Amino acid sequence: MSRFKCSEFSNLKEYVPGEQPRDKQYIKLNTNESPYPPSPATIQAVDSGEVADLCLYSDPECKKLKQAIAKTYGVKPKNVFVSNGSDEILNFAFMLYGKASGAVFADITYGFYKVFAQLYGIDYSIKPLNSDFTINVDDYKSTGRFTVLANPNAPTGIALPLKKIEEIVASNPDTVVLIDEAYVDFGAESARGLISKYKNLIVCMTYSKSRSMAGARLGFCFADEELIKDLELIRYSTNPYNINRLTQVAGTAAMADNDYYMQNCERIIETRKFTTEELTALGFDVLESKANFVFTKHPELSGKDFYLELKSKGVLVRHFETERIADFNRITIGSMEEMTEFIKITREILKEKGLLK
Amino acid sequence: MSRFKCSEFSNLKEYVPGEQPRDKQYIKLNTNESPYPPSPATIQAVDSGEVADLCLYSDPECKKLKQAIAKTYGVKPKNVFVSNGSDEILNFAFMLYGKASGAVFADITYGFYKVFAQLYGIDYSIKPLNSDFTINVDDYKSTGRFTVLANPNAPTGIALPLKKIEEIVASNPDTVVLIDEAYVDFGAESARGLISKYKNLIVCMTYSKSRSMAGARLGFCFADEELIKDLELIRYSTNPYNINRLTQVAGTAAMADNDYYMQNCERIIETRKFTTEELTALGFDVLESKANFVFTKHPELSGKDFYLELKSKGVLVRHFETERIADFNRITIGSMEEMTEFIKITREILKEKGLLK
Repeated sequence: MSRFKCSEFSNLKEYVPGEQPRDKQYIKLNTNESPYPPSPATIQAVDSGEVADLCLYSDPECKKLKQAIAKTYGVKPKNVFVSNGSDEILNFAFMLYGKASGAVFADITYGFYKVFAQLYGIDYSIKPLNSDFTINVDDYKSTGRFTVLANPNAPTGIALPLKKIEEIVASNPDTVVLIDEAYVDFGAESARGLISKYKNLIVCMTYSKSRSMAGARLGFCFADEELIKDLELIRYSTNPYNINRLTQVAGTAAMADNDYYMQNCERIIETRKFTTEELTALGFDVLESKANFVFTKHPELSGKDFYLELKSKGVLVRHFETERIADFNRITIGSMEEMTEFIKITREILKEKGLLK
Repeated sequence: MSRFKCSEFSNLKEYVPGEQPRDKQYIKLNTNESPYPPSPATIQAVDSGEVADLCLYSDPECKKLKQAIAKTYGVKPKNVFVSNGSDEILNFAFMLYGKASGAVFADITYGFYKVFAQLYGIDYSIKPLNSDFTINVDDYKSTGRFTVLANPNAPTGIALPLKKIEEIVASNPDTVVLIDEAYVDFGAESARGLISKYKNLIVCMTYSKSRSMAGARLGFCFADEELIKDLELIRYSTNPYNINRLTQVAGTAAMADNDYYMQNCERIIETRKFTTEELTALGFDVLESKANFVFTKHPELSGKDFYLELKSKGVLVRHFETERIADFNRITIGSMEEMTEFIKITREILKEKGLLK
């Protein structure tokens, strides 16, 4: 890097996205994408007329998109914020609230929280998960800091009940609590109903997982109007046209077609049950997941070895070298066909290693 | 806004995009969009198969897109950076280099520079344009600061010759010079050929103007590899999937179809000539523009009145209340049909006001 840049970025460690090797065709279970395409109505919405209109700027206010989200979730458009992927919401929130009061988040959680904290020179406090990888709720009460929780958590998949989330929000009246619900549609309870009760709550969601649009880059969140205004201030001070026309059109159509996406979530929940049962039968420990992935380890096979064996056999999963979880792998729930093949290959690996009971 | 946010944003004034009223259909000459759609090959590239693939993340490395840009401009992919609109490049550059050394830019220029400087608490120095709205080149030499110049400048449209740009870059060996060439394809000289000679130069471009893709959100820049690495550090620390799949596909196809877009630029240059001549004949002063807009005032009609009269008759142009330029309007060059209609309506306005010679 150059000698010209601000010295405070000298030790910044950027986020590392899941690998996307192109040496062969993989069963791709490493970045929590949906195995199902967007709905036919969503695909039809992006027609050649819309593409021809790319010569015109997108609506910076994202009016139709906000209205569609508000309608689906029964809130007002003024309580909705939309972004170029939910990472952008996290980015803006760390800038606004982390800089104001410092930040709190877990040791094992979405890796980007730490990157944002470092990017803005924020004083952050890391709270270790319990030994069973559950959240210690008391760690997040009365923190006096910007408090960030993924629910369900990633990469564990473990969810907190809404009652516990509300206790955390209520105990922090003077700082913002952000609940990152990227994976909430796969079986956890959402806190979005609490935004009218608590002025310090942001509930963040994404089209990338349950709505099959990771490649469209679209995140959204719900919050009190004053917090939405904060986020809009930063959006209009960085990139007012942050959401392109085609994503706005697709996102609006997808919200109007909610049943299709929620049915896909049901299919993924069923496939997760199958995957969990099969892995357990093969001797794996599988954490109880409410997300579109499972976090699992085998008592006699290292996380890294399992990851590498799978990769050599054409299955990509996500392995983190991070302390405490290096024995685990995070495995996205794909289609039933993909997971059946994954289980078959896993059985082969265990057999080759002499680990089949 | 909320009481939770960092106090340093309390006085931040966000950027105000051009208005997009929906009360009626306007001849829209206010946001410097292209009157021509993307090329047929670009439109065809965004087919339903690509839309169906939205369930997969976009390539965070943007490999194909960078290769296409590098090929068209005869540089290496490692000297190319791509972004969600060129505002994002400016944002990252202010964060990286403005915070390091302070910033310098003109009083009359792209309004977002000041917003970024304020967003990051940067010490900035404003250099007034000369009375004829040209740049005083000496103001930008040996500044000891991050130096930002739009060339052609906006909203004036006036361009500096490459020789002067090189003098500025050469005189600032210890700070970064960013040349914002959003409008360069309409007749100015690009500085991109200098990136191999100067390690402190960023040349920033966009698909929004000459490439008819304002709504796709795609910017790019050329620079020494070490500067590109700086920008990538910030991109991977904020939003690694910043460019969605459909924009990557459209942007790649558009670069392969360069002739179509450069021919449109020629048409716009011809239409600009027509518009300038007609306005001059009607008594307007028109600055010499190398961009896809003209900046003009009438000696006996205030800028605001002309803007409001045009709006009431269905033509939107951009009026800035800013000191020094409140008498002017920035008028985007649309199609020949649109500009013929604009001139006709302008003539009507002057006639009604008794200002026709």
